[in-house]
Amino acid sequence: MQETSIHMSNPHLNSMKEDILYHFDLGTGSHDLPAMFGDVKFVCVGGSPWRMKSFIQYIAGELGLGDPNADYPNICAGTDRYSMYKAGPVLSVSHGMGIPSIAIMLHELIKLLYHAKCTNVTVLRIGTSGGIGLEPGTVVITKQSVDALFKPQFELVILGKTVVRSTDLDEELAQQLLQCSKEIDEFKTVIGNTMCTTDFYEGQARLDGAFCSYTEKEKLSYLKDAYEAGVKNIEMESSVFAAMCKLSGIRAAVVCVTLLNRLEGDQISSSHDVLVNYQQRPQKLVGYFIRKQLQV
Amino acid sequence: MQETSIHMSNPHLNSMKEDILYHFDLGTGSHDLPAMFGDVKFVCVGGSPWRMKSFIQYIAGELGLGDPNADYPNICAGTDRYSMYKAGPVLSVSHGMGIPSIAIMLHELIKLLYHAKCTNVTVLRIGTSGGIGLEPGTVVITKQSVDALFKPQFELVILGKTVVRSTDLDEELAQQLLQCSKEIDEFKTVIGNTMCTTDFYEGQARLDGAFCSYTEKEKLSYLKDAYEAGVKNIEMESSVFAAMCKLSGIRAAVVCVTLLNRLEGDQISSSHDVLVNYQQRPQKLVGYFIRKQLQV
Repeated sequence: MQETSIHMSNPHLNSMKEDILYHFDLGTGSHDLPAMFGDVKFVCVGGSPWRMKSFIQYIAGELGLGDPNADYPNICAGTDRYSMYKAGPVLSVSHGMGIPSIAIMLHELIKLLYHAKCTNVTVLRIGTSGGIGLEPGTVVITKQSVDALFKPQFELVILGKTVVRSTDLDEELAQQLLQCSKEIDEFKTVIGNTMCTTDFYEGQARLDGAFCSYTEKEKLSYLKDAYEAGVKNIEMESSVFAAMCKLSGIRAAVVCVTLLNRLEGDQISSSHDVLVNYQQRPQKLVGYFIRKQLQV
Repeated sequence: MQETSIHMSNPHLNSMKEDILYHFDLGTGSHDLPAMFGDVKFVCVGGSPWRMKSFIQYIAGELGLGDPNADYPNICAGTDRYSMYKAGPVLSVSHGMGIPSIAIMLHELIKLLYHAKCTNVTVLRIGTSGGIGLEPGTVVITKQSVDALFKPQFELVILGKTVVRSTDLDEELAQQLLQCSKEIDEFKTVIGNTMCTTDFYEGQARLDGAFCSYTEKEKLSYLKDAYEAGVKNIEMESSVFAAMCKLSGIRAAVVCVTLLNRLEGDQISSSHDVLVNYQQRPQKLVGYFIRKQLQV
């Protein structure tokens, strides 16, 4: 198998004496990053720090890496911005909510993987989302991430100019994950487009935010337009995740469970136990995929 | 003094049987919000949960509300999305990093204050930022929040259409806070414009992200343009904060310390102790202001 390194598109980085990964409380001067992270092959990222801690315990058990009830220390314990856990070749990192929060984490994660000289890395986002026309609990593997106008792109203003980046994800990886779901055969999984918004309430056409200037009919008309554009679910991080992984030459996938069907409501009102069960589905799917890839 | 209530611009809200504030793990059906929060007059918000916990201990001591070393329970302990603490009339809430993250929190906070029938509420953001042409440790009180093109506005796509909102903040409140800083006389404070970006690295013209397609000269040219447009500091939440507070008729201010001078570098490399001291300055200023307002 050919070794694929992290593609670093910043000519300034190699002339820096030291690189402080501020929001991880790690750095090239203070930590031996190749020793700490050189063996990483899979990075799983998700919004919630609790969920990413529970994921590392789950995957350690799945891979037979020791006691699943062992305490995995938070590698970023010196900061409360993100949490990071490691078990063998798997790194689990939280990213908070929204494009800016995950982007800060990904800038520092990509630099970390580069400094650590990691090769053949796959990054998987496991998250929650609102579904459109799907039964709650359905898992969506993202084909393309689209914006609030259903365009498959991510826009960013750099030095006063708008830069547009592609949000394509790895098609082969998406198919591999779908196959894993068929083999698990415990919940429904589909491949489709994911709409990535910058707001949870007005930006996702909810009627229950602090502000709302549209009717229920207008809301449903917008969500139906999204559905017709191939959108299966809505979340808040996939576009910049897809764009940054693509620019770095990293194989990436987005696997989100739907907590509700937005054509039927806005509030997340399922019981705690039901929601916990739903949230375990992306973990289970990605855990199965990693085990299969590692042939454990 | 005239009582000012929260202005609720959502006609759908009053017809809802129950309102679940999902990201706070609170709700009108499960919690007596008027009993829990009806006396709140000041809400302090900041990115870091640790800092917001330390702020509630600090303000409790300043207001003589009991042992400053007492443990203040996290009101949102059922979720890891945000942390919330209360001491007398002061609420302290974390908001994570970036516009989408603070916007989710503010939607639910504004609804919480409305459901709790709070009156005469002031909301203050205490945060960290990068300075432009200021000595590190300087505190900036925001006059206007501007975007990456230096325009004093916040843009959001709602149902496929771009909506533009004003980001003006309360001028009288800014002057009152500046006067407090003069009375404390321990650190420099200025009033100026704050640039709010959607990205920490490329969006703020840093040379040390995972990607960089511009030269140091181009970076400095952009930051000097910002400086000439009146920008004193750069952070990632003020625009939507100003816009949402204004729409709700809430008096609001943004008080951020600068951790570095961006004309001199990109990395936050000051020692831990120096950074901790800097981060206490907005807390101290806002604590003094609240004490003065309450005439404690």
